[in-house]
Amino acid sequence: MTTPAPILVINPNSSESVTTGLSDALADFRAPGRPAIECVTIAEGPLGIITQREVDEAALRVGDLIASRPDCAAYVIACYSQPGLDLARSLTRKPVIGMHDAGVLAAMALADSFGVIAVSPLSIPRHLRLLRRLGVEQRLAAEVPLQGISVADSGHGEESFIQLRHAGESLLAAGAGAIVLGCAGMSGHRLRLEQALGVPVIDPTRAAVATALGLC
Amino acid sequence: MTTPAPILVINPNSSESVTTGLSDALADFRAPGRPAIECVTIAEGPLGIITQREVDEAALRVGDLIASRPDCAAYVIACYSQPGLDLARSLTRKPVIGMHDAGVLAAMALADSFGVIAVSPLSIPRHLRLLRRLGVEQRLAAEVPLQGISVADSGHGEESFIQLRHAGESLLAAGAGAIVLGCAGMSGHRLRLEQALGVPVIDPTRAAVATALGLC
Amino acid sequence: MTTPAPILVINPNSSESVTTGLSDALADFRAPGRPAIECVTIAEGPLGIITQREVDEAALRVGDLIASRPDCAAYVIACYSQPGLDLARSLTRKPVIGMHDAGVLAAMALADSFGVIAVSPLSIPRHLRLLRRLGVEQRLAAEVPLQGISVADSGHGEESFIQLRHAGESLLAAGAGAIVLGCAGMSGHRLRLEQALGVPVIDPTRAAVATALGLC
Amino acid sequence: MTTPAPILVINPNSSESVTTGLSDALADFRAPGRPAIECVTIAEGPLGIITQREVDEAALRVGDLIASRPDCAAYVIACYSQPGLDLARSLTRKPVIGMHDAGVLAAMALADSFGVIAVSPLSIPRHLRLLRRLGVEQRLAAEVPLQGISVADSGHGEESFIQLRHAGESLLAAGAGAIVLGCAGMSGHRLRLEQALGVPVIDPTRAAVATALGLC
Amino acid sequence: MTTPAPILVINPNSSESVTTGLSDALADFRAPGRPAIECVTIAEGPLGIITQREVDEAALRVGDLIASRPDCAAYVIACYSQPGLDLARSLTRKPVIGMHDAGVLAAMALADSFGVIAVSPLSIPRHLRLLRRLGVEQRLAAEVPLQGISVADSGHGEESFIQLRHAGESLLAAGAGAIVLGCAGMSGHRLRLEQALGVPVIDPTRAAVATALGLC
Amino acid sequence: MTTPAPILVINPNSSESVTTGLSDALADFRAPGRPAIECVTIAEGPLGIITQREVDEAALRVGDLIASRPDCAAYVIACYSQPGLDLARSLTRKPVIGMHDAGVLAAMALADSFGVIAVSPLSIPRHLRLLRRLGVEQRLAAEVPLQGISVADSGHGEESFIQLRHAGESLLAAGAGAIVLGCAGMSGHRLRLEQALGVPVIDPTRAAVATALGLC
Repeated sequence: MTTPAPILVINPNSSESVTTGLSDALADFRAPGRPAIECVTIAEGPLGIITQREVDEAALRVGDLIASRPDCAAYVIACYSQPGLDLARSLTRKPVIGMHDAGVLAAMALADSFGVIAVSPLSIPRHLRLLRRLGVEQRLAAEVPLQGISVADSGHGEESFIQLRHAGESLLAAGAGAIVLGCAGMSGHRLRLEQALGVPVIDPTRAAVATALGLC
Repeated sequence: MTTPAPILVINPNSSESVTTGLSDALADFRAPGRPAIECVTIAEGPLGIITQREVDEAALRVGDLIASRPDCAAYVIACYSQPGLDLARSLTRKPVIGMHDAGVLAAMALADSFGVIAVSPLSIPRHLRLLRRLGVEQRLAAEVPLQGISVADSGHGEESFIQLRHAGESLLAAGAGAIVLGCAGMSGHRLRLEQALGVPVIDPTRAAVATALGLC
Repeated sequence: MTTPAPILVINPNSSESVTTGLSDALADFRAPGRPAIECVTIAEGPLGIITQREVDEAALRVGDLIASRPDCAAYVIACYSQPGLDLARSLTRKPVIGMHDAGVLAAMALADSFGVIAVSPLSIPRHLRLLRRLGVEQRLAAEVPLQGISVADSGHGEESFIQLRHAGESLLAAGAGAIVLGCAGMSGHRLRLEQALGVPVIDPTRAAVATALGLC
Repeated sequence: MTTPAPILVINPNSSESVTTGLSDALADFRAPGRPAIECVTIAEGPLGIITQREVDEAALRVGDLIASRPDCAAYVIACYSQPGLDLARSLTRKPVIGMHDAGVLAAMALADSFGVIAVSPLSIPRHLRLLRRLGVEQRLAAEVPLQGISVADSGHGEESFIQLRHAGESLLAAGAGAIVLGCAGMSGHRLRLEQALGVPVIDPTRAAVATALGLC
Repeated sequence: MTTPAPILVINPNSSESVTTGLSDALADFRAPGRPAIECVTIAEGPLGIITQREVDEAALRVGDLIASRPDCAAYVIACYSQPGLDLARSLTRKPVIGMHDAGVLAAMALADSFGVIAVSPLSIPRHLRLLRRLGVEQRLAAEVPLQGISVADSGHGEESFIQLRHAGESLLAAGAGAIVLGCAGMSGHRLRLEQALGVPVIDPTRAAVATALGLC
Repeated sequence: MTTPAPILVINPNSSESVTTGLSDALADFRAPGRPAIECVTIAEGPLGIITQREVDEAALRVGDLIASRPDCAAYVIACYSQPGLDLARSLTRKPVIGMHDAGVLAAMALADSFGVIAVSPLSIPRHLRLLRRLGVEQRLAAEVPLQGISVADSGHGEESFIQLRHAGESLLAAGAGAIVLGCAGMSGHRLRLEQALGVPVIDPTRAAVATALGLC
């Protein structure tokens, strides 16, 4: 009996702790006989992907990594900006799934409209471009940013949780029936936030890996 | 350690063989410690859900079933017409996922545009309404029907495979980068069709269950 | 000379007083030699169609009723949730017109954008689904709900009129050039509201019957 | 008891026979105690409104006529190009309904998608602008023109009927569930065409007058 | 060597000072060997194009003027309401460019979403119709009107500048990345406003002439 | 008197002959006292930008170049794939204009719908993504590719002209009122093609520079 090919989850930044966090959050997808969920850090990447230059530089690294791993069954780009999505799809015929797309599409599978929590006001225009490219901007109820919280802190501590809950409540008031965490860093608060708000709160990386598992 | 709540996959028609087929196609999602994937038949349902009356009657049965199973973590309506989706969502705050929506959204996670294979020309107007309701009709490259193939036969035998392959080739020519099987019956041909066409071919039930697993 | 076939206006709830109100509001459409406007109550229905279950149960009754009345020239479903619209269209080739669709489309025939007054905040998500299905959500200026007013009271008394006027003024401020009454119960206030607001206020049941008469 | 104010149906071209045809086609809307349906010819107009200059010149005449008739309850512009619609709405707060808009919106009240028969290929770009302005171009299944048939002949004789039937069959094949006659001249063939095609065939002038009657 | 044919910029109102202002604002487009930029006043026009009747009357004059000047290479309609655009295009195969369309499209070439400053709240519905006709209403971040400022004053003096700056700041807050001056009169404040706001502020007449020059 | 800052036109590929061709095609925009139109080659670029990797690598080079030239008034990315557009906009507040966007938007300023000629069938999916991102995919009449013609040859010789004319005729038949050349290489045939087809044929680089000149 053959071992199924792994699913490669790519953290385009160089923070090993982020990759560890991702891997932990995906632990329950692992089981004997199932595809391995392999989480990798791109060591040459910056500590966080924030500027557009960082996004564009990451794209090439993501492409190189995917080209070097033809043994995988599917690829997940675990960054909400999805660096290298088009490039990766030009390099392999296997599924390549971006975290933004997967998160938003999972929300649409659950509710009539969705909200997004951004880690910063600066992220919102980029997110709107991604929604427009995906063709689903009409389903967005609203997007609300955190203020003054770093990516690393967005999933830990009371201050960030309070901001997330307030953001979530604004999104509910705007009609959102599901909420997408607009940054991988926030996933540590996902379950608590879901319980506080009473609607599905989506960790886009999990959504992306789940989509990949559905295909394999 | 608690056992995770199961995911309930509802076949709204009364065909046990269809339910068995569904369950087999979901086998790899099952693992120790993971949510059970429980596939149920609605015994009072018709042998197939084809007419709008059958869809509307099924809606109430699906709602009743979901209301009677508060022990589940999520519900999947394993029929492309998604009978009872709104009703179920009015009865529970847990995730309820329709097979059509999940299949189409998975395709959008993989490709710029998607195609759908319908089991019959008569299904197409209903599918277009579902796409419009979902707000993604612009992403549809084309939908192509089989001709003279029953639901039960659509996943078995050479005649149906030949029709599926021809339909898929038409969809590729129309620009589809992923293909959604527009009927649960077709899943038996999924893998072979994917290999013949070279693009992802999506079994919407698997996509729905994967989405549910991503949330749990 | 033959008598023209009647237009059947179906009140899916069991409230005879609602049916009487509907019939009165349609009185001026009746004339010698013109199609009769026959308003019927579905006696097995609930007193009001509020929950999704009530909508879905009503769908089957509406379908049965229409199937039992092949003598009619056209059918109007006089409930803003339009229970049974798809079912009815699968059972007859004659025109079947839903009250929501007719009301919104009449507003679009009169003005660049329209507003809707909902009887309750809970109705709004369902209305948005109906608009999306119809494909005209971009023409909605805004929807504003009443608060704490029952369906039965929404067309009578000062309290409901005051709320309707305030709602209407909000819709005008949002740019609405015509206003749709989002519940059959409101029609008693239609004329007074139109005079207070200075823009067309549409009773969707009248709009639906008018559309039917245009076809016969 | 007061007499209700009339509905003014404006034929912007100078052909009295067209106005007579319109009036005859609206005969069944007339009844004692109901608003009169007054059909008027603009004598200074051209014999047909075909070029854009004719449309734009007609706009001013339509505006003048409406301004001179404040006694009416509503106004219908009985030309598919709707000359003067915005002007009229700037001059009166009473309903002003264009024939194109009313016809298309009536079709949308009846079916999931509609087709249009144009009297000439040259009309199609103008119709598409009207649909885009109305915001419903996505609901158009297709538009098919007649070839070499004059406006006056489009509602009479075998040659035009044969072309209409062929056009209608093409529209059915493209998925149209209702068909709009894209020229007032075609109404003489409406009933026969509806019987031949088995789907609603809409005379937009009747649709516009019906919408007006629904408001009065 | 031949002299290139001129570009005709048409001011549909009869204010010579507006035409002079337009011509001055276009001065830098003029150069030896380049197409002349000829700015003309329609003497029979009103002093300002404000009402819909003025728009519709201007349409015919614009058409006549264009028909009388077949020597030109392209035509710009220098009024935000674009009177006569369709008419002109029916009379010549040469490029005819409306100021609204050119301004909005230039903004879209520069930024993800744009804002519009209207000279009056009354202009906004007309602008929205123009956007819908153009098919780009989804790219509008917001439109904000001035209050109590005449067209002539909108480009001169402190009061109008203060209102423009406040309007612009509201548009930035709504996400606009570029701002379109929704009235030819405002161009006198363009440069100062752009410096105050830090995003491109577009004079639509310049955008239209630039588009014309790009074609010649 | 100060010299106006130049407009920088960036050819992201390393072909000097392409840059020379671009510069020649822009010659008439140059005049004393006007901004210089400076065309630069990115020497490290590939000879052509064809694959997605080439696009993504070019993005960084375009960003670097723009960052190194703060003396310019505006930047034009003279490649239909617009490498580095988002990056450049993150690095400067001055206008950055992509050739695709400018070409398509110029077409929309001229006609109700436009067509695109692609240099290869492989380019079409990328173009559709660009249109969707721009939000104007509904205005596309059709896109038709050349077959077996290189970028370099697409603007020279009879074989490519014949293919361009056939492609253009197909686009006219699909309703296009203006045609966008979907590759910088085609501009050598622009004028001849426009004369053959009788509708505007747009060289997107000229459209982009014209838009930039309108702002300066």
